[in-house]
Amino acid sequence: MSGIETRLRANADDIADTLASLLPRAEVDGVRCAEARLLDAMRYACEGGKRLRAFLAVETAILFGTDRGHALRVGAALECIHAYSLVHDDLPSMDDDDLRRGRPTTHIAFDEATAILAGDALQTMAFSILASEATHENPFIRCELVACLARASGARGMVGGQMIDIEAEQADEPLSLAATSRLQRMKTGALIEASCAMGAILGHASATNRRAVEYYARDFGLAFQIRDDLLDAIGDVAAVGKAVAKDADAGKATFVDLLGIDGAKERAALLTEQAKAHLAPLGDRAAPLRDLADHALDRKS
Amino acid sequence: MSGIETRLRANADDIADTLASLLPRAEVDGVRCAEARLLDAMRYACEGGKRLRAFLAVETAILFGTDRGHALRVGAALECIHAYSLVHDDLPSMDDDDLRRGRPTTHIAFDEATAILAGDALQTMAFSILASEATHENPFIRCELVACLARASGARGMVGGQMIDIEAEQADEPLSLAATSRLQRMKTGALIEASCAMGAILGHASATNRRAVEYYARDFGLAFQIRDDLLDAIGDVAAVGKAVAKDADAGKATFVDLLGIDGAKERAALLTEQAKAHLAPLGDRAAPLRDLADHALDRKS
Repeated sequence: MSGIETRLRANADDIADTLASLLPRAEVDGVRCAEARLLDAMRYACEGGKRLRAFLAVETAILFGTDRGHALRVGAALECIHAYSLVHDDLPSMDDDDLRRGRPTTHIAFDEATAILAGDALQTMAFSILASEATHENPFIRCELVACLARASGARGMVGGQMIDIEAEQADEPLSLAATSRLQRMKTGALIEASCAMGAILGHASATNRRAVEYYARDFGLAFQIRDDLLDAIGDVAAVGKAVAKDADAGKATFVDLLGIDGAKERAALLTEQAKAHLAPLGDRAAPLRDLADHALDRKS
Repeated sequence: MSGIETRLRANADDIADTLASLLPRAEVDGVRCAEARLLDAMRYACEGGKRLRAFLAVETAILFGTDRGHALRVGAALECIHAYSLVHDDLPSMDDDDLRRGRPTTHIAFDEATAILAGDALQTMAFSILASEATHENPFIRCELVACLARASGARGMVGGQMIDIEAEQADEPLSLAATSRLQRMKTGALIEASCAMGAILGHASATNRRAVEYYARDFGLAFQIRDDLLDAIGDVAAVGKAVAKDADAGKATFVDLLGIDGAKERAALLTEQAKAHLAPLGDRAAPLRDLADHALDRKS
């Protein structure tokens, strides 16, 4: 494994442990509580995944000298939001996906009502984690974290992006490149940018340094999405762990449709270079973020 | 109109205004944004209703000397959570209701995907409101508000209660009185109790005074739910504004099934007296909360 792969794996393991300890327990003294089915579904939805958003938050926070324990809680909150969004996006009335992270989606493994409720409770849990004193002793920082996550994940961010995506599928005309870029910035970009922003908030970063990691995250997020579209177009279902060639079939706007395969590859490479360039003022401390950008460009899943 | 009816109406109007100004706008300079459908659905879901939870928060906060503007924001956040829970509970895969507050439910007026997303974004918005400096200048207070709302509405509160309720419907045996009481405390009681708790947090209430309003809310919330079950059993659909005789038909545990109509009426009356008794230490300042309890006992909708 390369250095970045080892680092990603270690982060993913730590996030899994943090989530396992934060998620409410279905059993107390060997007795399952009445709402156990909900709690099982929440745990199921939080399993697996690359933990990319957590990695960005944790590495950014550490780069600014934050305690890793605090950073892992922020990473876990981000993964709760990401997991909830996947559970809801996969629902039959939304993208109607049966496979996610190589396993049945939550509404297939449980049922639709349980999946909706598990998503709801995971969103609540994210804010609960951030508001807790265990995340940071300074309540100003905690409030800023809550506000930042809410801005990125709400109606003008992730959820708004999903709404546009669903409507675009049903429209007669495909979205333009500009509209597709805005959609992506809301649907996936906002939370990726918030991941770095929250790391910077936790690390008391200066305004300049915070902007540096936010700009990095913006370009990285777009490159990541283009790579996602490329994998959907040319990837292999076993490696990707979810259905492929699905977005194009569904009439969704993808960067591959708009730019072609070679054009998309070029754009992703350019954005990756640009993302890394934003980190210049941070010097060697930002190496893990740079390595991540290179790694994401070549990823197969 | 009685004094309490006037007061409830004035609160409902103020909450409607507060929500109208806080909800994101679908149009900017006469142009509808791409996510406008989502924002329309959020507004639709927030219209109407008794604004009971906001009333509890606002009256409690005012009783402890809080500025009404701050209290209305907390009330609006509670109503966002309440509205989101109704939108999701009404979905086809949950309670499958077509009528709410005398109008088509959100998934009927829009569609299922939009309703799920509107509920999601309303939850986010609630936490966004609470984390904002406009709600209170002290970040400790804001964090306490976020934590209190998250505890009441998450897996061990409202969402957990809805999970138990759905599972109880599918079970062979009806729930016991103890299990039904626990379900109600989670599904509706937790948010009602949080409404008073959040008013007390905002008003820097002493631990004793906070306990007084929380105990009031607990008994009041249970009395309110029993009255709801009575209206479902004996009420009139036009007055109630949603389907009646539905919970019993669906095999849901109701207090009327468990206690009989007369037994349920007696229990609600007893709980109302008990709720008011908890307010004794607060004297005349708590008159609106006492009046609300009496009013709720006699309500026809």
